[in-house]
Amino acid sequence: MQRLEEKIRRDGVVKAGGVLKVDSFLNHQMDVAFFGELAQEFYRLFGGCGVTKILTIEASGIGIACITAQPFGVPVIFAKKTKTKNIAGEVYTSRVESFTHGVTYDIIVSKEFLRPEDRVLIIDDFLANGSALLGLSKLVKDAGATLIGAGIVIEKAFQTGGELVRSQGIRVESLARIAGMNETEGVTFVR
Amino acid sequence: MQRLEEKIRRDGVVKAGGVLKVDSFLNHQMDVAFFGELAQEFYRLFGGCGVTKILTIEASGIGIACITAQPFGVPVIFAKKTKTKNIAGEVYTSRVESFTHGVTYDIIVSKEFLRPEDRVLIIDDFLANGSALLGLSKLVKDAGATLIGAGIVIEKAFQTGGELVRSQGIRVESLARIAGMNETEGVTFVR
Repeated sequence: MQRLEEKIRRDGVVKAGGVLKVDSFLNHQMDVAFFGELAQEFYRLFGGCGVTKILTIEASGIGIACITAQPFGVPVIFAKKTKTKNIAGEVYTSRVESFTHGVTYDIIVSKEFLRPEDRVLIIDDFLANGSALLGLSKLVKDAGATLIGAGIVIEKAFQTGGELVRSQGIRVESLARIAGMNETEGVTFVR
Repeated sequence: MQRLEEKIRRDGVVKAGGVLKVDSFLNHQMDVAFFGELAQEFYRLFGGCGVTKILTIEASGIGIACITAQPFGVPVIFAKKTKTKNIAGEVYTSRVESFTHGVTYDIIVSKEFLRPEDRVLIIDDFLANGSALLGLSKLVKDAGATLIGAGIVIEKAFQTGGELVRSQGIRVESLARIAGMNETEGVTFVR
């Protein structure tokens, strides 16, 4: 998506260790008007798939998931991160390893809100090592619901996550795919 | 707000220890279409105040803050919770005590995104002991920005937070104000 690539080039900052800071518009300050454009693009891609629910993960996925839910006319559920052991029976749970923060945590969703008849679209801000996306897709699978696919704002295509997730037959649509980046030359995109 | 009170009565569940579960529409599953109605109400209350930025706190404030930002046409910033000591200089920070989780944590906002010229509306899902709201208002004060007020979805008016925050001269508008609640009789509202 052209407009997103321009925005990443203009406002993104590449930090040491493969970290792309886009916190001026995506994951700290949030440009909600621009989110509306991203939402329309997700709707163009997945609007015909009978989505009944959007699933994301706290915290930075919540904003884009909520704005995306508007054209779809469906509710959002966000998986909660927790370090405590959870009561079996009431929640679906899976394990996620964070690329940015170097920690492992459990994510949970109440069984109440993810039903076998649901057709779920996952929305998240980043795809890097794929751990969050696989964790979320496990929740959908455990619920017996249908996973329509995943809509990602920025994919770090030079990491292995995208390939890993797609190799499991999951449809992944990323609005910007980064081929490479470094502190001096900035960001290049997959063509 | 009548529609919100009805929704709380119908879908809210009162748990032991003064906990109101509204996770079917507000803070786990999020009814984004309904958020649009809440946003219009916040806009009716604060639309004429020259708001330039909406400030909230992760995670459950983010959804309602983003939808509310739409009629205002402004960006959202969410304060991040952290347990690590932060680099002085780059962020504003304050301390918050969580009523629900019984823990204390620091919240931070990058100085970049909160400027002296900003006119800030705080949006959050709950007001209970007022700690989150006071922590957020301290960030605004430290930035030298103008605090327009706070828009809260549900205020537990039987706790001291609302009075505490209002006594500091902060305008607080809560769309539902709970007078009391218990497991057998449910929720009553301030009239």
